[in-house]
Amino acid sequence: MHERLLADFEQRKPAALARAVSIVENHRHGFEALLGALHSRLGHSRRIGITGPPGAGKSTLTSRLVALYRSRGLTVAVVAVDPTSPFTGGALLGDRIRMEEVALDPGVFIRSMATRGSLGGLASSTREVADVIDAFGFDRIVIETVGVGQSELDISRTADSSVVVLVPESGDSIQTLKAGLMEIADIFVINKADRPGSDRLRNEIELMLGLRMGATFKNIPAHHGVDLKRLANPAKLARDAALGSEAEHWTPAVLATSAVKNEGIEPVAEAIDRHFAYLEQTGALRERRWRRLRQRVIEVVEHRVRKRLWGDSTTNAWLDEQLASLDSGTLTPFVAADELLRRSGDLLTRMDS
Amino acid sequence: MHERLLADFEQRKPAALARAVSIVENHRHGFEALLGALHSRLGHSRRIGITGPPGAGKSTLTSRLVALYRSRGLTVAVVAVDPTSPFTGGALLGDRIRMEEVALDPGVFIRSMATRGSLGGLASSTREVADVIDAFGFDRIVIETVGVGQSELDISRTADSSVVVLVPESGDSIQTLKAGLMEIADIFVINKADRPGSDRLRNEIELMLGLRMGATFKNIPAHHGVDLKRLANPAKLARDAALGSEAEHWTPAVLATSAVKNEGIEPVAEAIDRHFAYLEQTGALRERRWRRLRQRVIEVVEHRVRKRLWGDSTTNAWLDEQLASLDSGTLTPFVAADELLRRSGDLLTRMDS
Repeated sequence: MHERLLADFEQRKPAALARAVSIVENHRHGFEALLGALHSRLGHSRRIGITGPPGAGKSTLTSRLVALYRSRGLTVAVVAVDPTSPFTGGALLGDRIRMEEVALDPGVFIRSMATRGSLGGLASSTREVADVIDAFGFDRIVIETVGVGQSELDISRTADSSVVVLVPESGDSIQTLKAGLMEIADIFVINKADRPGSDRLRNEIELMLGLRMGATFKNIPAHHGVDLKRLANPAKLARDAALGSEAEHWTPAVLATSAVKNEGIEPVAEAIDRHFAYLEQTGALRERRWRRLRQRVIEVVEHRVRKRLWGDSTTNAWLDEQLASLDSGTLTPFVAADELLRRSGDLLTRMDS
Repeated sequence: MHERLLADFEQRKPAALARAVSIVENHRHGFEALLGALHSRLGHSRRIGITGPPGAGKSTLTSRLVALYRSRGLTVAVVAVDPTSPFTGGALLGDRIRMEEVALDPGVFIRSMATRGSLGGLASSTREVADVIDAFGFDRIVIETVGVGQSELDISRTADSSVVVLVPESGDSIQTLKAGLMEIADIFVINKADRPGSDRLRNEIELMLGLRMGATFKNIPAHHGVDLKRLANPAKLARDAALGSEAEHWTPAVLATSAVKNEGIEPVAEAIDRHFAYLEQTGALRERRWRRLRQRVIEVVEHRVRKRLWGDSTTNAWLDEQLASLDSGTLTPFVAADELLRRSGDLLTRMDS
């Protein structure tokens, strides 16, 4: 076990944080024990998701927010899962230098997530890395993702507050923007708002919000409590995220910024604070965090099942032996699956050390 | 059970095919029994994947290929999972009318897959629908997907031969094209090849192919047999798809077409035939199909596990009871996951009726 690391971590040594994050991100030996040891320290950080199409200026907005939070004495971590972000090394030199200045500040922690390989597990790893940072005691965690697919939306859903950044040019294509991107937004930021088309974009967002609020009032029962049993169903979970009990009370803010010129950043920070206060007062914060914890258990269970089944040589050898029968048609995948599960019972139910 | 349906299906009644596809696509009651009953009939159809960015002309190319195959007396099914495709109702009226002409032909079957909801299960549903069509005895199945994300690549990987369609305009952005799109291609089609930039695109593709071949020679062991045990690992599976034993022998064709003008379609059909002949001769066809069967069993197992665990009210109630302890930090998600699996052993290993 990582006892020395944990001791250094408790003394808030930056190197211990970096190492713990690496162990967890790469699922190195002992990462579960490490996360388990840190688990009781969770809950201090406010998690802010920043999502939007490529080129919307998410990274610039993030760096402005970081500077603003620092000026207020708050510590900030940035977790970037955006391949076009300077945090992940994908952008112009100027941006990168600007970030490196911030990076010299011990009150700032920056980590980019490797997006190589499948996106499937990225939402789960991002959540785990954010947990480590939370346990370390950072005041704010900004999770920056480029909003193009389901996985990125999943990542953004792990935040307490989600900011969706658009630019006037997005107006033309707002219809084709993934509906999910619109649904997760607690706050809309129209960046580069001095460009033509800014007003039109605002109108389109507000029109869409009007439709969404209308749908919410129609479909949501009167009581506010999330029925946790319903959350087991992923489709319902997604719908809850869109039409959750919070949504009928919180009207997403629509704010204009010019992140490059450092204009309009303060109102964004204020809207995030207001949203967090709203979450706290209505009990929605606890609901979101409980939902996250529930989702964490589900992820761990499914990961365990996959690892135990497909990492087991006996199971694989048995499956290989069935391929000829599957091919000739005498065995169906359904019968094979049932038999595989029957044979693998001990694997699935054993305790991990 | 669907006995009457199966009898009609065996008599090749078109209505039975349409109904069987709907039952399977929507996972209606008895769909597994139906797929199980059809399983021994699999293996006649050649499955052709057509993938590419929006606007590349995939649907026009597909309709030209359909017409060509029909002129040769072959039956053809189209499974469209592309929201921009006229097959799925997303395109111009002119295109749709052209497709409706084809649709009157009983030797053609067209089905669009609903893309509403998560893409997660779409690769698996597409494969199941293709299985039904295969069992019905169609000569060719064209699976058309818009190539933007991991799920679409997964869909395309279920085909025997994958055609990637690009347009000269793609040249500017070929670097940003998902690497996976380049890796799955058995055949590249440069559509709208009379437009400027066509030669440049061809050069870029061939340069990329050169790099890919180089990598293949370096990384692939000399023997040709796929080690089926390695396929259990999804990451390795993906790498095998990219650097599979076939890849070192098959040099992807790069062909120019103007699908709108019906030019260059025959060479595409020929390249597909050549690729299929190559797959048959080298044994790679059997490997691909066994890999597909293996993947089917894995999907069914994981689907069963998810349904049994998260569809069970006792498991959900137990999980809900742990949320307070998880929140206070006295219980970690890992301990909860282990305990949940221990308690759910019977659920996981029981046989489905």
